This record gives sequence, structure tokens and C-alpha cells, in this order.
Amino acid sequence: MAHDKAAVRKILDKIKAEGRTSLTAPEGKLVCDAYGIAVPKEGVATSAAEAAKIASAMGFPVVLKIVSPEILHKTEAGGVLVGVKSAEEAEKGFATIMANAKKYDAKANLLGVQVQQMLAGGQEVIIGAVTDPSFGKLVAFGLGGILVEVLKDITFRLAPATREDALSMLDGIAAAEILKGVRGSDPVHREALAALIQHVSELISDFPDITEMDLNPVFATKSGAIAADVRIVVDFSPAPARYRPSHDDIVRDMNRIMKPNAVAVIGASTEEGKIGNSVMKNLINGGYKGEIYPINPSAPEVMGRKAYKSVKDVPGVIDVAVFAIPAKFVAQALVEVGEKKIPGAVLIPSGFAETGNVAGQQEIVDIGRKYGVRLMGPNIYGFYYTPKNLCATFCTAYDVKGKAALSSQSGGIGMAIIGFSRSAKMGVSAIVGLGNKSDIDEDDLLTFFEQDDNTTIIAQHCEDLKDGRAFAEVAKRVSKKKPIVMLKAGRTSMGARAASSHTGALAGNDKIYEDVLKQSGVIRARSLRDLLEFARAIPILPTPKGENVLIITGAGGSGVLLSDACVDNNLSLMAMPPDLDAAFRKFIPPFGAAGNPVDITGGEPPKTYQNTVRLGLEDPRIHALILGYWHTIITPPMVFATKMVEVVDEMRAKGFEKPIVASLAGDVQVEEAAEYLFAHGIPAYPYTTETPVAVLGAKYKWARGAGLI
Amino acid sequence: MAHDKAAVRKILDKIKAEGRTSLTAPEGKLVCDAYGIAVPKEGVATSAAEAAKIASAMGFPVVLKIVSPEILHKTEAGGVLVGVKSAEEAEKGFATIMANAKKYDAKANLLGVQVQQMLAGGQEVIIGAVTDPSFGKLVAFGLGGILVEVLKDITFRLAPATREDALSMLDGIAAAEILKGVRGSDPVHREALAALIQHVSELISDFPDITEMDLNPVFATKSGAIAADVRIVVDFSPAPARYRPSHDDIVRDMNRIMKPNAVAVIGASTEEGKIGNSVMKNLINGGYKGEIYPINPSAPEVMGRKAYKSVKDVPGVIDVAVFAIPAKFVAQALVEVGEKKIPGAVLIPSGFAETGNVAGQQEIVDIGRKYGVRLMGPNIYGFYYTPKNLCATFCTAYDVKGKAALSSQSGGIGMAIIGFSRSAKMGVSAIVGLGNKSDIDEDDLLTFFEQDDNTTIIAQHCEDLKDGRAFAEVAKRVSKKKPIVMLKAGRTSMGARAASSHTGALAGNDKIYEDVLKQSGVIRARSLRDLLEFARAIPILPTPKGENVLIITGAGGSGVLLSDACVDNNLSLMAMPPDLDAAFRKFIPPFGAAGNPVDITGGEPPKTYQNTVRLGLEDPRIHALILGYWHTIITPPMVFATKMVEVVDEMRAKGFEKPIVASLAGDVQVEEAAEYLFAHGIPAYPYTTETPVAVLGAKYKWARGAGLI
Repeated sequence: MAHDKAAVRKILDKIKAEGRTSLTAPEGKLVCDAYGIAVPKEGVATSAAEAAKIASAMGFPVVLKIVSPEILHKTEAGGVLVGVKSAEEAEKGFATIMANAKKYDAKANLLGVQVQQMLAGGQEVIIGAVTDPSFGKLVAFGLGGILVEVLKDITFRLAPATREDALSMLDGIAAAEILKGVRGSDPVHREALAALIQHVSELISDFPDITEMDLNPVFATKSGAIAADVRIVVDFSPAPARYRPSHDDIVRDMNRIMKPNAVAVIGASTEEGKIGNSVMKNLINGGYKGEIYPINPSAPEVMGRKAYKSVKDVPGVIDVAVFAIPAKFVAQALVEVGEKKIPGAVLIPSGFAETGNVAGQQEIVDIGRKYGVRLMGPNIYGFYYTPKNLCATFCTAYDVKGKAALSSQSGGIGMAIIGFSRSAKMGVSAIVGLGNKSDIDEDDLLTFFEQDDNTTIIAQHCEDLKDGRAFAEVAKRVSKKKPIVMLKAGRTSMGARAASSHTGALAGNDKIYEDVLKQSGVIRARSLRDLLEFARAIPILPTPKGENVLIITGAGGSGVLLSDACVDNNLSLMAMPPDLDAAFRKFIPPFGAAGNPVDITGGEPPKTYQNTVRLGLEDPRIHALILGYWHTIITPPMVFATKMVEVVDEMRAKGFEKPIVASLAGDVQVEEAAEYLFAHGIPAYPYTTETPVAVLGAKYKWARGAGLI
Repeated sequence: MAHDKAAVRKILDKIKAEGRTSLTAPEGKLVCDAYGIAVPKEGVATSAAEAAKIASAMGFPVVLKIVSPEILHKTEAGGVLVGVKSAEEAEKGFATIMANAKKYDAKANLLGVQVQQMLAGGQEVIIGAVTDPSFGKLVAFGLGGILVEVLKDITFRLAPATREDALSMLDGIAAAEILKGVRGSDPVHREALAALIQHVSELISDFPDITEMDLNPVFATKSGAIAADVRIVVDFSPAPARYRPSHDDIVRDMNRIMKPNAVAVIGASTEEGKIGNSVMKNLINGGYKGEIYPINPSAPEVMGRKAYKSVKDVPGVIDVAVFAIPAKFVAQALVEVGEKKIPGAVLIPSGFAETGNVAGQQEIVDIGRKYGVRLMGPNIYGFYYTPKNLCATFCTAYDVKGKAALSSQSGGIGMAIIGFSRSAKMGVSAIVGLGNKSDIDEDDLLTFFEQDDNTTIIAQHCEDLKDGRAFAEVAKRVSKKKPIVMLKAGRTSMGARAASSHTGALAGNDKIYEDVLKQSGVIRARSLRDLLEFARAIPILPTPKGENVLIITGAGGSGVLLSDACVDNNLSLMAMPPDLDAAFRKFIPPFGAAGNPVDITGGEPPKTYQNTVRLGLEDPRIHALILGYWHTIITPPMVFATKMVEVVDEMRAKGFEKPIVASLAGDVQVEEAAEYLFAHGIPAYPYTTETPVAVLGAKYKWARGAGLI
């Protein structure tokens, strides 16, 4: 349905002219009418027949009210009839009211009878909208009433929302079941409710001036959804436009920055312990094959390379300049970088916004914009890009190559990433520090890694998103191709929010992140360790082709815990068809249990694991396997591990490939077995039943979000 | 208030005699009256003055209704007045009703006017009771209404509940805030509501025949709580009494079993790979110093020890017999164990109830009862008790001595315990397999470990509790002295429950475990890894003396994640007093942040960590510290670790001792630092901000439950 933008614009212009910050109820109704947002219908009848006609058109029950400038106390005058249920009743009611009114005040001017749709019953819900500093316009949906306020059961989507977004919101609240009709109550009209959400989201998107909005309550019934009360808040001071380079510009510049052919180190030093010395060492010892240009005003050479006083003195093209000089010298050097037309500056130095030096940071941002230099940082450890053997950091060199690209807002978390990656032998394509994010941020990285063939998964730690909307837009696209995992820190420090609407007050900042990340197909990690484990395991797992997960376990106890973990991670334990059950039973002892989990029991030889896993890989109805290994003398850990890899290889050669994860219960030898399995494509973990299922769950979450299952 | 048990007994007897399974509404009212469970008050007035008096006594508003056998349609007769709000109105109302009735039917016999308390407003809640197969009688509390049914927001306590238990239930639901009055509504009368819960719990405890009960809805207002509807279900088939040895008997027998002076190995074997051979090797190689008697019908000696055909042939006293023979021979050998008056049998063999051989298991249980032999298992790996160097298992020997006692229902989980313990160098006093739990179960172990000076923490894995009530009773006592951690598996497979009451239908099995474990002071682990990490760290941490937790971090990013984890784990980040803030600021750079977290910033030398941690330990307002370490060249991991241990030792010598945990972000060298810190009393973890806070949270949970803070 086409919305009447002009009508809304006219109302908003009037409010702006009058210097008001909110709409009156009649203005709200007009705005709703313009955007197909259902509010109670009303009309004035001047005859009984007309009353019946109007009432029939809007549907029963209706309320009839006398319209007369002289009659202020309508009820006292017998001028109100509620719960009018039929055309006949409406006709009679018109007559009754007119007669009562005449009797009440013979001199009164009776203009007619107002017929108004009567709202009652159904489920009370709230639909609203807020403007978030990072994500911009968001539409909200929740159940109405006091209890929901206490439970904060509300969900958000970026506006404008599609029909699918809106429908997903109905399932996005904890009490979703209630909308489907419980204890004999009617289900709500889902399409009508979704349309209301969608129209609100379109309204607030079309008019940036509308900052907050409440439809509260909305009565949702089996036949429709109508907003009983409308509240709209406006703010005519325009938010400053955000700087956003074009997609192609980002790709071009980020490719030169991340995969440079020549790197300048501003502040390159021969002095042990200096950052400029560590960066030089890492570049050289890391095995970077491109040109390295030390920039140093006094030294003729650094670590055997000719040094230059300024980047401007370097004869060749430079792709990226790594800054290893104090904050106060950065601006001047950055101008030279700009003049040299270097597309990227890696700003290791601290001493900017994080220490209160906001002006200093703004100065370098302005220089960057002026010269078209993209800034990474400041206040970072730098970055690694392993396909180029590039360690543009002052930390230790990192060399376990792989497909996972990680980034962190904080240096400390960056060091944890490096340590874990090295310790767990996680194959990494890049580790990037984003620090103050004066310019380059998460969505720039997503845009680069999207087209980077050396990267298959992107894992990011952040404390905030400077431009949540840009991130969401890019993430929505990229996540369809490559899994994105995010650890959003600060999720529990919701802070105080000034909000004048009800929806605004319910909008805990973290709930917005939660919902928008989900809407964008991003897998949210709940902990640092999850971020790291997901980054390590997800790229190794093949993508599942369906939802049927099967547990095969030697330990019944592990089977129970693995089942718990499946429920926790939204995985569907396959209901075992009788023929498959019989097929599994052939391989396991009579007192073992088929069904799901398949419990092969503890005393079995390697053959039993092999036979059941082979069957699990072969049968097309099964889409993923979770193994529960129990250390026994008859099947020691490394025997289990090597046999499992054999079966998987054998079946892969036959064209059967499915995600498999393993939980290993046993003595310390299971650690070596886990490492072997991991190195051969089976994420395996000792002493935990939760982690293997969590990583499989994350893979599934991604596959579902990307529309692959 | 004394309850009228006789009145209830009389009603139940009548129902039993009539073969009914539930009470009528009037019967329900009588039962409620007998137990001080408020239901709407009523009385009949024969004069206007009396109507006013009765109404005033019960409180307004009231409903007045004509009492006359001839008047069936009271409303039509003008014989009903609702919402009567004062004594005066009641007097007038009496007159009005009598006059209306007389006018309606002059011949009617007017017996008077019924005055009934009018229920309305306030918060609708539900109070109920169920009988759980494991926990017995439980009282339940939740909010009323359809939404709560969808959200399953209900909480349980063992019946009878104390006033404190009942009050804790009001805070035990997700929507607890609503009872305190929100959006201007009145708070409920907490004591009245708690009394209602308490009385219900007493009623169902006093009368085992009452199996389920619903007060639904209960109207809770600021002045009281009244049950508008009562439903009581009875079952007169008595549940069989559970076998429970006395506390002293358990202690006596368990001490002999766990700390034996002489062990018999039934089925001791010289043959490599046999369980009876592994058990012998473990006993001997584990360093057990007591007598070991191999029992073998054919071998004259086993591993250099004289073998006997039967335990009855052994000349000395035997404390425990370890069974390493097939299931079919167990019963006979157990009789001999009984005749030899051995107090305990460790039944390693499988082939009993777990394979469907229920009769075989019942047979050995009966033998055990007959002879007074306590049975561990069957279907277990055995047990370890390190203070006696006792490895009565067929698994590998375990030797890292310490204070943590662990048990598992499943063998696989037992192996994970052993592997983790060895790998993480967790000091262990005992590891026990409980398997089928035909006799010895979790509460027997609690009773033993309670008085075992070698144990300071008890960590248990279970899939069910055979006697949840016994466990809860023992755990409630023991947890006051020693922390108990439990991993309850199968928590998500709630199964279908046949329940005829509303409360019963809401009683998901896991919610009962959740609430009862909490009521018993047990720390619930959410995962296998948590169970293990808690068992490892809790005994090391000193008990905090208050709730004020302070984070000191080198990495701001870690500080944010550690703060998140504090909220997740119910820890209170101390609000920093100005003088303390100033004191910390003296030690940190000007751009660092005091407050909480204290962010010392990344580039600081060891001295800064030392100074701030010393201050944190010294100031009596701070009760626990969480450290966030960031690996830098100026403060490398092992330097940080050794300096921290120095400060802690120095302060301990001065009498300052507080729990400290640490999260280490850095390159792989932090792993060695974590190990060093752990070994010196500071639980420390690399690459995770969650685990250190989770273990501190678990320690706090215990300390609160035990009433120590």
C-alpha cells in the first residue's frame, strides 16, 4: 500500500513551525491513517440507517455517542451506548440516543451520532520505534501490560523492516506462544500484526524527524490489529551524516593496506625495546617479502635497510605506513603520508581519545579525510596478515596460517587472541587491532574479508559499533557467504538511557545488539573463549545439509550431557526411524541403546565406533554427528582418533561429508587424541561435553542464517 | 497457629471411604479453614446492624446476597449488591435487599442476607503443591494468569517450608518485581502471602494422602492474600517407605569402606587385561599400605599375595570387598561377604539394571540389606581415596592429592574427571563411581565427606537422585560446612509428566532440581567443565568476608568483559568511595581510570600491579579481587605471576587474606604464569575472562548459602 508521505510531512511541518516536540492525539491518528496503521474507525451518522451502515462497515461491536456542542456530559444525557452488536441494534441505538438527548436538553443542537469501533478482547501488545545512536531507526514489538514491563520481553529490528522481519518479531519474544492462542484463546492475526509493525518501521524510516513512537496498547485479535493509543515524539535537529566511503573505495584501499607491496615504518628504530624496533623485527623476521621502508629522521639505515627522513623521500609507491612514534608527532607525519598518497596509516600510538585527547584524534581524522588516508587505530597493536607473512605489529610474530580472520577493539583481547591461536594451533589469516576506531572499523574489515580468498570466517571483538547500521548492512550481506562471529563486550552495562517513550525505556542497549546481530546473520559469542573456539572450529566443519543431528556415544553419561547441550544450542536430535534404528542395533551390543543417542556402551572395540559412524555418515537422513568417546583399554584414545579419521576419509572419498564433533572423556591421553582429530577435520575436546556441541550449534546458526538449510 | 489436623483427617477419611480422588469445593474450604489458608470470608446477617458488623469484621468491599430458599434468581429479584464499601452502605444495602426481595416475592421466606468478602484487584498468583517421586512433597508459587503459564514462571521448595523459604519464593520468580508494586500499583502483603505458602506446605506434609493441590487464583493485595479457588487431589495408596540407614551407621560403614585397613579383591587375577588384575595392580602400585586379600578360587597367589578361595577363608577382618567378577557370580560372593561381616562391597561388574537385569539387581540389594553390606554400584569403575593411597578401580592410578572429593554416576564422566584432574593437577581426596546406585548414593557420600578431614569440597555428577529428599536434607546441613557442587545431567529432557493439577503441569522436573538444590545450599554447575573448574578452584580460594568485588586490570578491554562476567555471576562490583578512588589514582597513570574496574593501563611496570593489589588487599571495604593481566614487555607473564604471589604472601603475613582470581591475556607464556599462580593460591586462567569470575561467583554462592556473608 502506498503511504501518504505528503500528509505526514504537512503535519510535521506544522509541529516544527509551532516548536513542539510531540504530536497531539488527532495528529497521531492522521499520521497513522497516512501509513495504513489501523486505529479505531469512526464516523458520524445523521440517520439511523446511516448509523447501521457505518457500523456494519467497520464491524461490531461499536460505541454510539451523541454529537452535540451543547451536551458535554454525554453519559448523563443518555447519549452513549457501548457494546452495540448488530445493524439492528445500531439503528435502534441511534433512535434511543437522539430521543434521550432531546429529552435531556430540548434546545441542544443534535448534529448526529458518532459511531466508533469498540476495542476489547484479544491480546494487548505494544509496537514502537526508537532512534539508536549507532543503529538509527529501530522498530520494536512486545506484549503489552505491566508484567511484560517487568520481564522486558521486547524485540527490535532495524527499520524499515520487511514482512519477514516483522513476522520474525512475533516469534522473537519469550512469550511468543501466547500469540498462537493458548488455553482456548484465539490466535492473533499474524499478518495484520506484522503489517502494523512494517508500517511503523516505514513511517520512522521515511521521516528521520520522528525519533520515538509508541502504539500502546495495540489490540491484536484473530481478525486484525488496531492501535488504541498513539504517541509520537519528534526532533527536528538533524543528526550529522556519517562518513561512509563507497564499497569499491573500501575494497581498493583495504586491499592495499592488508596486502601491501610496500610498507613504511614511521619511527623505525635500531633501539631494542622501542616499538619502532619491534615492528621492524616483526616485519623482517615474520618473512614479509614486500618492500620495507624505515622512516627515521636521523638514522641512515635501520636493520640493514636504507632509512628515509620522510615517506615523501621514498622513491617507490607505498601501500601502508605503520606509525611507531609518539602521539604528538602523528599529525605532521600523517600529512606527509597523505601527500605521498599512501592509502592507509596503521596508528599504533596511544594518547588520543582514550586518554581524553579528543581534539588530537579529530585532527588526525580530518587529515585522513582530507588526503584520503584510511586510519587503523590509533591505540592499537597493529595487524597480522599471514598470507603475506605480514606482522605489522609490535607484538611477537604469528605464523600459524589458516582461514580465520580475527579483530579486537582492545589490545588486551588482541593478545589473548594471539596466545590462544598459537596455543591451539588455530589457523589464522589475519589478526587486526581496531583500538579507538577513529576511521577503519568492523564493517571495513568485513568488506575486505568478504572478498579475501584467504579468509573463510571472521571473528570480531567489539565494545561498541561506531556505525551499527553500516555494520548490520554489510554483515547481512557478508554473513551469507562467510560466518561472522562477534563478541560484544559491555553487554551487561546497559547504562542509563534518556527516553521519553515507553518503547525507549524498554530498549536496553544490549537487547538491540542481540536482535540486530541476529537479524544480520551474525553469530554472537557469549564469551571470549567461545569467540576463539568458534573461530577455530567453524571453518573446519563442513556445512550441514539439514537439521538432523545424531549422537553416537560410548558413555551413556556423556550421551545425556551431549543431549542437554543440543537443547541448549538449538540443535535437533533426530527422531530415529525404525529401519535406521534396526541398522544401528546390528552393530551394538543387545544391552546398548539405539534411538538417539546411539549408546554403543563402554566396552566396545574400535570396530563398533567405526561401523556406527560409517552408517551415520552414509545415511542421507542424518546431517551431523556428535561423538562421545569413552577411554577404555580396548579402544584407547589414539586408536579411536586414527580410526575415526580413517572412516571420515573413506566416506569423504565416497562423497559423504558431514560435520562431526567429538567429546572425549578419559585420562590425559585424550588430549593428544583431541589434537589429532582437530588437525584432521574433527573438532574434538577433552573433558567437556559442552564445547563440541556449542561449535556445532554455531555452525548451524550460521548455516540457517545464510539460508543454506 | 495450630492447625486442626483432626478436621482434615475427618474429611479425608470420608473421601477415602467414598472412593473419591479429589475434594469438593466445600470440602476444600473446610480443609483451608483448618490450616489457616485464607478463603473468602462469609456470614449471614439477620439485621442491618449485623450486616454492617459482619462486613466490617471481614473488611470491605463485600457482596450482599439475599438468603431465601424461594428466591433462585437473586439478581433478578434485586437481591444482590456488589462492591459494598462501608458499614453504612452495608446497613442500607441490607434494607434495600430485604425490601427488593419482599417486593419480588411477598411470600418468600427471607432468612437474612449473606455477607461475602469480595475479591478483586491485587495481583493474581498461584500457590500449589505436588508430590515428586524423588523429592516428595513440594510447595509451588508463581504468578497467575495465562502469560505465566506460557513463561512457566514458577518456583518450588521442599515441604514443609519455613517462613524464610516461603519469603524466598516471592523473590524466586522471574517476575518478582511485580509483587513489589510497579507503575504505581500496591505492593502485595508479603507476610500474608508467605504464610499462605507455608500453611499449604504444612498441610501437604501432614497429610501424605494429599498429592496435589492448587490455590488458583490467589488474590494478593497490600492487605492480605486470599485463595479464590481451591483444588485438592488425593491418593490413598501409600508410597513404599524408603530405606535409610541412620546417620551413625552411614558414618561407621562409609569410614570403613572409604578408609579401609584391609581390602579383598574378589576375582583378583594374574591375567593381564582382566579387571581383577587391573584392580590388584592399582591397589599395589598406588601405594596402599593396608592388607590386600586376593580372592580367587584357583590361584594360590596373585601378584605375590596369598590368594583365598572365599572371603570367608581370610583370617583377618576385611573392611571392603572389591568385586571384579561377572554379574552372574556376584550374588553368591555377596552372601559370603555378608557372612564375613564385611560392611562394604564395591560392585564394578555391569550386567544389572542398566542392561535390563532389574531382578538381578534387586537380588543383590536384598542380600546387602539382609547382611548389612552397603553396596557401591554396580556398574562402576570403583573409587579412589588418595589419603590412603587407595585406588580401588580398574582405571589408571591417580596420585595428585588434595582436598576435592568427586563422584560420578557415569563411568565416562568418571574418566573425564580423572583425566582433567591429572591434567590440571587438581588436588583430589576421592573420586567415586556410583553407577546404578543400587544402595550407596550421593547423600551417603556427603555424609562421609562431611566428617572427612581430608575433604574440603564435594563435587558430584548425577543424572537423577534416587532419594532427592534425603539428599536435600543432608546437603542442607553439609553445605554449611563444605561447598557442594553438582552437575545434574538430563536437565533438558523433562519428559512427560502425568499431572492432574495445574501446578503439576507446570512442574518441569528440572525446575524442581534447580530450586531444591538452591534451597539446600548446593552450587549447581551448568557444564561438566564448570563442575571440574569449580572443584579445582573453590578449595583454594579463601572465603570472602563481604560482597564488594574489585577489578584491577591492565587491559581496559578485559575490564569490560570481566564486568560483564560479574553481572552474569551475581557478583557486586563495589561502588568506589572517593577516598579509595583517590588512593588508587596515586598509583596509576593520569589517563588510567580509577573507579571499578581500576584500569592501570597496559604500559605499566610490575610495581603498578603490586601497589594496586596491595591496596586492594589492605582496604577492609574490599572483599575480593579480580585481576586482568595484559602481557607486555615491561611486565612479562612470569614476572607478573611471581610479583602477585609475593604481594599476596606479604599481605597474608600481615593478616590480610582475600579471594583473588586472575584472567591472563597474552601470548602462550601466560599458560605457565597461570599454572604458577594457581599453584600459589590464585586461580588464574589464560584466554578467558569468564572462568575466573565464574569460580569466584561459585565461591560467593556457597558463602552466601552457608550464611558466611
